[in-house]
Amino acid sequence: MQHSIQQVSIALAQVNFKVGDIDGNLERISMAVADAKAQHHDSDRPLMVVFSELAITGYPPEDLLLRPSLQHRVEASLQEVAKLSADVAIVLGYPWHQDGKLFNMAGVWSQGEQIARYAKRFLPNYQVFDEQRYFTAGADTCVFDWQGHKLGLTVCEDIWHEQPIAESKAAEAELIININASPFHLGKLQQRRELLSNHAQRHQLPIVYVNQVGGQDELVFDGASFVVDSAGELVMSAPEHESTVSLVDFDSSLNVQVKQTVLAKSELASIYDTLVLGVRDYIEKNGFKGIVLGLSGGIDSALTLAIAVDAIGKDRVEAVMMPFKYTSSMSMEDAKLEADALGVSYKVLPIEPMYDAFMLTLEDEFAGLARDTTEENLQARCRGVMLMAISNKKGYMVLTTGNKSEMAVGYATLYGDMVGGYSALKDVYKTIVFQLSRYRNELATSQGEAEIIPERVITRPPSAELAPDQIDEDSLPPYDDLDQILEFYIEGDLSVDAIIAKGFASDDVKRVTRLVDLSEYKRRQAPVGVRMTARGFGRDRRYPITNGWKAGS
Amino acid sequence: MQHSIQQVSIALAQVNFKVGDIDGNLERISMAVADAKAQHHDSDRPLMVVFSELAITGYPPEDLLLRPSLQHRVEASLQEVAKLSADVAIVLGYPWHQDGKLFNMAGVWSQGEQIARYAKRFLPNYQVFDEQRYFTAGADTCVFDWQGHKLGLTVCEDIWHEQPIAESKAAEAELIININASPFHLGKLQQRRELLSNHAQRHQLPIVYVNQVGGQDELVFDGASFVVDSAGELVMSAPEHESTVSLVDFDSSLNVQVKQTVLAKSELASIYDTLVLGVRDYIEKNGFKGIVLGLSGGIDSALTLAIAVDAIGKDRVEAVMMPFKYTSSMSMEDAKLEADALGVSYKVLPIEPMYDAFMLTLEDEFAGLARDTTEENLQARCRGVMLMAISNKKGYMVLTTGNKSEMAVGYATLYGDMVGGYSALKDVYKTIVFQLSRYRNELATSQGEAEIIPERVITRPPSAELAPDQIDEDSLPPYDDLDQILEFYIEGDLSVDAIIAKGFASDDVKRVTRLVDLSEYKRRQAPVGVRMTARGFGRDRRYPITNGWKAGS
Repeated sequence: MQHSIQQVSIALAQVNFKVGDIDGNLERISMAVADAKAQHHDSDRPLMVVFSELAITGYPPEDLLLRPSLQHRVEASLQEVAKLSADVAIVLGYPWHQDGKLFNMAGVWSQGEQIARYAKRFLPNYQVFDEQRYFTAGADTCVFDWQGHKLGLTVCEDIWHEQPIAESKAAEAELIININASPFHLGKLQQRRELLSNHAQRHQLPIVYVNQVGGQDELVFDGASFVVDSAGELVMSAPEHESTVSLVDFDSSLNVQVKQTVLAKSELASIYDTLVLGVRDYIEKNGFKGIVLGLSGGIDSALTLAIAVDAIGKDRVEAVMMPFKYTSSMSMEDAKLEADALGVSYKVLPIEPMYDAFMLTLEDEFAGLARDTTEENLQARCRGVMLMAISNKKGYMVLTTGNKSEMAVGYATLYGDMVGGYSALKDVYKTIVFQLSRYRNELATSQGEAEIIPERVITRPPSAELAPDQIDEDSLPPYDDLDQILEFYIEGDLSVDAIIAKGFASDDVKRVTRLVDLSEYKRRQAPVGVRMTARGFGRDRRYPITNGWKAGS
Repeated sequence: MQHSIQQVSIALAQVNFKVGDIDGNLERISMAVADAKAQHHDSDRPLMVVFSELAITGYPPEDLLLRPSLQHRVEASLQEVAKLSADVAIVLGYPWHQDGKLFNMAGVWSQGEQIARYAKRFLPNYQVFDEQRYFTAGADTCVFDWQGHKLGLTVCEDIWHEQPIAESKAAEAELIININASPFHLGKLQQRRELLSNHAQRHQLPIVYVNQVGGQDELVFDGASFVVDSAGELVMSAPEHESTVSLVDFDSSLNVQVKQTVLAKSELASIYDTLVLGVRDYIEKNGFKGIVLGLSGGIDSALTLAIAVDAIGKDRVEAVMMPFKYTSSMSMEDAKLEADALGVSYKVLPIEPMYDAFMLTLEDEFAGLARDTTEENLQARCRGVMLMAISNKKGYMVLTTGNKSEMAVGYATLYGDMVGGYSALKDVYKTIVFQLSRYRNELATSQGEAEIIPERVITRPPSAELAPDQIDEDSLPPYDDLDQILEFYIEGDLSVDAIIAKGFASDDVKRVTRLVDLSEYKRRQAPVGVRMTARGFGRDRRYPITNGWKAGS
């Protein structure tokens, strides 16, 4: 069968780039182009492969963008991109210096030459984004001709504004290509699709949305590239959290010929897979041999262990139980059950000897001073030092096990349970930790496997076991309340009075928010970890440590 | 004697504000107004008191600016400012919401009312500054009438550009008021004065430059407010590093009537005083009882101890020597000499018992694995845990002793010698550590006191003493070379090839720059510390940890 020249194929290349690794990224681009060509069986139909924002450098390159040698490295790589485009059109993003300014550029190559380029016009400078630190905003719309069609080109944030798409439409674009580096947070996928669906409908323009995938320090890019047609309907969706090249055939009116959508993941699946991808990419991209973590018998470390194993496999994970006199026998049993269920290496290393050695040496120094949290912190720090020694000796990274609720109120010991290179649950509230644990168990049982996390670990009251019969809720409101207060304060920026007005106990709100403010110094020294809310404790939230803000209205 | 109404007095109020502490800052403003009035003896001469940028919130408020309750707090405080202005004009900065946008505003009050206001036009979004994260740029020039004079109003960065001053001149301004929050870094004072002198001369306009003073986390504002006349000459300068209110009398042509300048400090004095102020304000604004630090017998901890004592006094400082078998007797002697010279409390707490307890417990875990840096790190971590225990028990903050050269190449142990709430030397290269030590000794001897830092601590080869006969330069280039390579790489963003081309050994450059890149994860968990170069390891340098950038051209 003979196609008209106006029928085209567009491949959405959802690639896991590595920041700064220009040569490696070029190789990844080249492989994705080959993949697209291999899927493309109709030689009469022109093919375009679309990559994500700043594909050449990976996103976000941060201050690597300030290096003077960036430009000639990018130039050299674009010459290779041009060569790759001999028989296929390529769209991708790259940083570009011109007239003493740096632009966040999207380029189009065809038949060995760049045929169009566009400088991003809306530069996000909020949340985790610092684009105005580096880039100058572009001023022009870009609608280019390809195979008899007029295509509009935009970069990420541009599509969240009205102007670029409206001006592309006015310039007779028939379809909009939007290249992205859009990190995951809860609810973001729906947000993107609704917004683009509305845009498409209003302007009667199909939109091809390509996002990168993979973990880069605290950010996890979830991929989930998609196409909406001119009626705003989702006609193609790529999987979440996976590197893929998805070929889409368009008819001569640029309608998608075969609808191909995958079901969106459930919220919990989506969070869990984000955590796994974040951990995996941090480990693999930084070249660690494996993961070592402290298993306490509690739920946070149990869930973190499951994530570690799902990320890099049981053979590269070592779990260490470090009991002290306050460790219950139940915790000892549960930790072993968890390690056995996942099949990881498991060690028991008691901390009494070093704890006692410290206390003895400090006897004079502490003479006459009452017992307080110092002794609890000392236990946590003996564990931290032990994990770091194993890490140093074996090249395994310590994966930290604390959750967002703890990190928020400072219920974590600096240089103790906070040691580690990366944190899986840093942005996961405790109430979600419970849900994810049940989710992971159900995943196991639905596949005919045994539960990973013993039921009683999920149901018994959480305890740090740093003092006799201690439980978390002795000194904190119940987690259901705590997490809501935290969310209002941290993610909603509400004042203390406004949170109290929502129906929480005044003392609880004052105490919790005060703890959040007082703990800023701890968070500043915490390992990076997966961001999964719209405000994580990383580049997202820039707070003064020295801070005289008083609670109130 | 009767003055014409056009003769005026302007007080430069160089105040140490506290970020977020709106009520406290209002109190500080009120006290400075009272101080200015007390100095002002000529009731016929109208008085204006000029404060710094964002005086109401302190600078930088960071994400406190995102709180919805900011606006009504600022509103309430501005009502108080209006009251204060009954008999004196007041100029100060504050954040202000209008039409859904936030502006970095400067206001003028007189006779109980706001008579002018101006929104900052140039918003710095580089180095440590994130102003475009929060603020919208203003569009208008502000020249206001006061006592028969026309005064132009600008905020900080505005004066570094041509437009605001040129437009003020065109609008017939006779004098420019420029309110600032300009942090110290090496050479900044000269830079400011030269720039403003040129501007003043070119536009034939005197400029009143007011800067805040004091430490706020990593930033130290050095004050050093000044006035240049319309010929560009420095006719008034306020002291560096001190809270002051300086009254300046102007004649009816707005010429300064009596020249009053203080000598600029030497470079070393200026650095040293910046470090002292940074430490003092971190301790006092955060309410710590005192400082505890580890004294090793080496030069970094010796200098840090001197800074601590100069910051908060010897009675609130405790020094701890934690010897191990590799600690030389010379180090033991020198540490004691240093503590005695400054008169601080001094303890000796050996780390053998806990080190041995860890190694014994880890015996099976480490079986068959060779001795490596793990054992060195373990020593450093035993010391870190000990210092933190003392810190927790006594409410003393651990002051970290590492320098910039070490932090750059990662010659520091995470959770070991890196523990602490604040770091004095974080942005001070080792070569400057030597110079500052001599400077501090000369200061002592010039005042007839004994040397603080024993000569041989300055002259003997630096060693971490973590292994037998170890010295730093065994594994690093000499510090003179190292620091230059680091400065080219970190502050100059030069490529490896470009640094080699400057004449350094290729192997050294490759090794050092590689170490810098590999150590990013450590720096991310380091305590905040004084910034004193144009690129410190804080908000200033935003680097990916996961980073595939390869050395080369």
